[in-house]
Amino acid sequence: MKTKKVAIIGASGYSGEELVRLLLNHPQVELVAVTSRQNAGKTLAQVFPRFASHPVSRALRFVEPQADELAKQADIVFLALPHGVAAEYAVPLLRAGGTVIDLSADFRLRSPAVYKEFYAHDHPAPELLAQAVYGLPEFYREEIKRAALIASPGCYPTSVLLPTLPLLRAGLIQPQGIIADAYSGVSGAGRKAEIDYLFCECNESARPYGVPKHRHLSEIEEQLSLAAGTRVVIQFTPHLMPVNRGILTTLYLTPRAAVTDAPGAARVGAEIAAAYAQAYAREPFVRMLEGTALPDTKNIVGSNICEIAWRLDPRTGRLIVMSAEDNLIKGAGGQAVHSMNLRCGFPETAGLI
Amino acid sequence: MKTKKVAIIGASGYSGEELVRLLLNHPQVELVAVTSRQNAGKTLAQVFPRFASHPVSRALRFVEPQADELAKQADIVFLALPHGVAAEYAVPLLRAGGTVIDLSADFRLRSPAVYKEFYAHDHPAPELLAQAVYGLPEFYREEIKRAALIASPGCYPTSVLLPTLPLLRAGLIQPQGIIADAYSGVSGAGRKAEIDYLFCECNESARPYGVPKHRHLSEIEEQLSLAAGTRVVIQFTPHLMPVNRGILTTLYLTPRAAVTDAPGAARVGAEIAAAYAQAYAREPFVRMLEGTALPDTKNIVGSNICEIAWRLDPRTGRLIVMSAEDNLIKGAGGQAVHSMNLRCGFPETAGLI
Amino acid sequence: MKTKKVAIIGASGYSGEELVRLLLNHPQVELVAVTSRQNAGKTLAQVFPRFASHPVSRALRFVEPQADELAKQADIVFLALPHGVAAEYAVPLLRAGGTVIDLSADFRLRSPAVYKEFYAHDHPAPELLAQAVYGLPEFYREEIKRAALIASPGCYPTSVLLPTLPLLRAGLIQPQGIIADAYSGVSGAGRKAEIDYLFCECNESARPYGVPKHRHLSEIEEQLSLAAGTRVVIQFTPHLMPVNRGILTTLYLTPRAAVTDAPGAARVGAEIAAAYAQAYAREPFVRMLEGTALPDTKNIVGSNICEIAWRLDPRTGRLIVMSAEDNLIKGAGGQAVHSMNLRCGFPETAGLI
Amino acid sequence: MKTKKVAIIGASGYSGEELVRLLLNHPQVELVAVTSRQNAGKTLAQVFPRFASHPVSRALRFVEPQADELAKQADIVFLALPHGVAAEYAVPLLRAGGTVIDLSADFRLRSPAVYKEFYAHDHPAPELLAQAVYGLPEFYREEIKRAALIASPGCYPTSVLLPTLPLLRAGLIQPQGIIADAYSGVSGAGRKAEIDYLFCECNESARPYGVPKHRHLSEIEEQLSLAAGTRVVIQFTPHLMPVNRGILTTLYLTPRAAVTDAPGAARVGAEIAAAYAQAYAREPFVRMLEGTALPDTKNIVGSNICEIAWRLDPRTGRLIVMSAEDNLIKGAGGQAVHSMNLRCGFPETAGLI
Repeated sequence: MKTKKVAIIGASGYSGEELVRLLLNHPQVELVAVTSRQNAGKTLAQVFPRFASHPVSRALRFVEPQADELAKQADIVFLALPHGVAAEYAVPLLRAGGTVIDLSADFRLRSPAVYKEFYAHDHPAPELLAQAVYGLPEFYREEIKRAALIASPGCYPTSVLLPTLPLLRAGLIQPQGIIADAYSGVSGAGRKAEIDYLFCECNESARPYGVPKHRHLSEIEEQLSLAAGTRVVIQFTPHLMPVNRGILTTLYLTPRAAVTDAPGAARVGAEIAAAYAQAYAREPFVRMLEGTALPDTKNIVGSNICEIAWRLDPRTGRLIVMSAEDNLIKGAGGQAVHSMNLRCGFPETAGLI
Repeated sequence: MKTKKVAIIGASGYSGEELVRLLLNHPQVELVAVTSRQNAGKTLAQVFPRFASHPVSRALRFVEPQADELAKQADIVFLALPHGVAAEYAVPLLRAGGTVIDLSADFRLRSPAVYKEFYAHDHPAPELLAQAVYGLPEFYREEIKRAALIASPGCYPTSVLLPTLPLLRAGLIQPQGIIADAYSGVSGAGRKAEIDYLFCECNESARPYGVPKHRHLSEIEEQLSLAAGTRVVIQFTPHLMPVNRGILTTLYLTPRAAVTDAPGAARVGAEIAAAYAQAYAREPFVRMLEGTALPDTKNIVGSNICEIAWRLDPRTGRLIVMSAEDNLIKGAGGQAVHSMNLRCGFPETAGLI
Repeated sequence: MKTKKVAIIGASGYSGEELVRLLLNHPQVELVAVTSRQNAGKTLAQVFPRFASHPVSRALRFVEPQADELAKQADIVFLALPHGVAAEYAVPLLRAGGTVIDLSADFRLRSPAVYKEFYAHDHPAPELLAQAVYGLPEFYREEIKRAALIASPGCYPTSVLLPTLPLLRAGLIQPQGIIADAYSGVSGAGRKAEIDYLFCECNESARPYGVPKHRHLSEIEEQLSLAAGTRVVIQFTPHLMPVNRGILTTLYLTPRAAVTDAPGAARVGAEIAAAYAQAYAREPFVRMLEGTALPDTKNIVGSNICEIAWRLDPRTGRLIVMSAEDNLIKGAGGQAVHSMNLRCGFPETAGLI
Repeated sequence: MKTKKVAIIGASGYSGEELVRLLLNHPQVELVAVTSRQNAGKTLAQVFPRFASHPVSRALRFVEPQADELAKQADIVFLALPHGVAAEYAVPLLRAGGTVIDLSADFRLRSPAVYKEFYAHDHPAPELLAQAVYGLPEFYREEIKRAALIASPGCYPTSVLLPTLPLLRAGLIQPQGIIADAYSGVSGAGRKAEIDYLFCECNESARPYGVPKHRHLSEIEEQLSLAAGTRVVIQFTPHLMPVNRGILTTLYLTPRAAVTDAPGAARVGAEIAAAYAQAYAREPFVRMLEGTALPDTKNIVGSNICEIAWRLDPRTGRLIVMSAEDNLIKGAGGQAVHSMNLRCGFPETAGLI
């Protein structure tokens, strides 16, 4: 039963395409509009041949983005736009009474100053920051249900926050000294015609970038600080690897209690297991691995799942936590649809499994 | 002018194959024997079609490995065998007066007890450990020139030690708390018929393994301890990524002096630059990157170069060092040939550029 | 509403795994048994971590294959076994009154002599050949609905037959001189621990194999001969390319009528378009491309769709037809589920879109 | 001993980069100039970090292309430019008395009309076509030695012509009805910032393009026609596959004599073997495969070798010939250097093995 109408502004990038796929197949929404300047006039099927067997894809044509028009047509509007641009559309959409789920970075931070520090321009709509809800359903479920403006988290932040927040909230790890070493598939760079992301530049290549101060740090640190109750500064190193999709993040954390002896490790291990169980045992999209299993991006690509495994190292006293997610689903479109499900009162997993 | 005869025991794996390539094209050595149980009787060209245009590849046939026979034929014998097996051949070869360059882990450690802890069996020839030289030319050049038994370093250890040793020796970083996060191409797993390394299991996949206690830790920690003058324990997480070759390692280090203010960062930065310059300015196979360049495995695959770049992070006080190398060349066969060149008095770069 | 119970014998290969995925998510069947000698005792979730979020995957354990037992448990049994072995299970299952959908080559041919010529052993159950129905739904829909034994087509044959059969049946192309040049992803080789299919042997590699007489020829030629009403012999060259999934087949055909002048080309073009429209306009899983679009495996991977495009070449007088399919879905598990849907009276697309 | 000075106009594409590599390492030439509009002012090492260990790469800077200036500096000038643009530089360079080796399509055809038909613009310097020599050393060796203007063959044409010319010249195959089905790595598309060649658009993708009339047809057909002594029209289908480098071409040919019986096949087989032996037994860069071996791009990538294997099919009466080459070396820069070696009187293999 299609009960809501949805639209996507900026539907021709990789995140937008994945959103299209999820919304076309969602049992309770009707995709009524998609926008793209360069593809205006073409059908979804022409731009994305992989969707051509879906009847809507042959009928629905891309249009130029016009906020007022879309506000009339759709109950929920997704923004899959670059940062800075997203805010321009959010303002009129919200004014018109719509619900906005923004996949850009524009509304993820509470402070316009931090935004400016990391994004190098003034925030285009600072007055909206206070009302935006961070769309990480595992931690902001109730807020999302009531939000008019949902800031869907970034792909790297999701891969860092899900493994870390339960431990910080439970006070099991030290809030300082956190290191996140992450590798992303190339779709994370977007569908941009740049030499750096050509096949021959990425294939048989692995490389760090944005060292040491990547933009996503701001969002990660804000959420970690809120969870820890103190200002948290972390080390975060993103890398590019030759896969289409998937982020693998390896986190180096320091337990508050000693784990260098067997009893200590056993005690802390039990506390960690309990914290994760409390946070995620009933979560449909976080999968704690068991036994000897470790995350592998191939096991989650195509799904909205974030896989997590952890190991204590008695030799170093550290806790290693590893996560894997699909950057375009749990790290983008899937998580946004999860928020939409919450906002609309749909079953949480509708259209996502 | 071919002045030395060389042989390879175990020439049908990926490291062995790369050694074959390097030695076939080396201007001063003659490859006189290659062994392989499964390929005995076949020519090099039959087993490795890519070498078929080299005349020697069509004449030289694989033979069963017989140490006594090889000791008579060759001045230098390379062992490209699994750990535990290499030592069996090293003993008779050395007794016969040969020079052995071992690419396995068998002679990299000084302590048979540590070997047993990490490799889960008794060392097969503990009496040889004292005479083995660790074949890292940048740090053991003089010892290599005189060694009868050279233990060529592992691929991961090379990628960790080259970025770290100059800083430890110069006392610029704290010896404790080192974290090495490394991703390797699949050739690192060897040419083994195992499901885990099939194309479809590795392609579009990234995954950690051997967490938290990988075998290579023993070798890395021994070398770091020697450089630091104190026992060093590190955190090391290897991962598999879908490229044929290349290791990218990201190291998280802590400078001894504060770098959180600009003057501190400048001072420490200058000291780090000086330490690397002193260590590598004249080294042909370590390339310190300049300006905004960061390592990329595609820039070093096929060469014996290890690329290194570093960044101080004033936000966290840490030093990030990144290295890239070809695991089969600088991490295996190329480094072994470098040692051979030193041992034989050839130009250091002979056959390697 | 789950109305049928299904089982898979041989569920641990790539085709088996894909069948598991499709059947777990099928709205009208219940997967009650999966067999695997090597994985007996393990749950589906342990063997295939990607399915771990499906509740059945954590409950259902692999068992040893026992035909009698499975015949009691399941209404439909899928065989995802090597040729020669599948027949052994089909005999008792059919005797027990079950419906068998065989993904191997065992029941695709009508002649035991041809089977022996191409598979190099006597057919294990020649008495069943007469009752087996070739499970290509687009051409055997009615027969499949009534069949007890369905021989699901091979991946290459599907990619050749779908583009060719409508033209042969309509008498538009000459039955002799057909050339099929096909490239397959590596999953086509199965989940076998063989050196040839290791990541490093397949990545950055493209190679022909089975030239000039590949086993699948027998099945292709039998179906083409039936359609043409005369014995057809074709040229078929399979190649391996470095993708996980997908077959791209380029067919070189000769129209019966001349197309070297514009009116001839226009007339023949219209006839070809009509033949394809008649065959596929209402087929859910064949997508005739329009305009300038050409097949691309990335557009069909993960779906049960076969994409087809064609071009007349007035310079040579030939017709070029190109198809793309997912070898594990339309070329294996998806097509088998399509047959099951027909056999059970489910909607044809149930569980497939 | 460096005896010639060479320059490259257009050195920042993939072919140009490969030429740089080959010329930097060539024992008898000195690379004195490289041009690139977008990289003018940067050193080779800055643009191509992989060459950074070569001393020349740190000294030589890209300059704006100026034909007059380059004519003074270099004895040989390579043009690695788009078609249409190359001719603009060739004219003044030749007028100044230089030797030009052009890697574009501008001088490969003898007829300006055919050029216009396939390249859609008038030929920019038709007066030079008569003096240009087609730089396929195996067939134009003597002409190349004396040429001032060498038109280095295209990558696809080389992969088609080397397997075909000896058979056509020997009259062993019918000149009509030839089919060439070819797959190329993505570097064949050049280093262009276009969405179609992004990593995520090419990875896990295989697709035909330019069907049925690709530009390279003109050059292939001209050479085949010259060899056959009659006008030859062929079918040629290029495809893109996800590897960096390598072209695999499968040719479907028809022997003049029947091969459907064993004696006929044996006789024709012997003639084919003899024709190839006569053509290539002494050629350093064509490798006829033996026994059961078939071409594999991974065996020739990085080398100037073209691998060829052939099979007669008694079932269809056809001859299947398969070739593999590195599109950037034997299909571009390597073949150009081979021509330079001939032109300058260097050993043919200098700098190429």
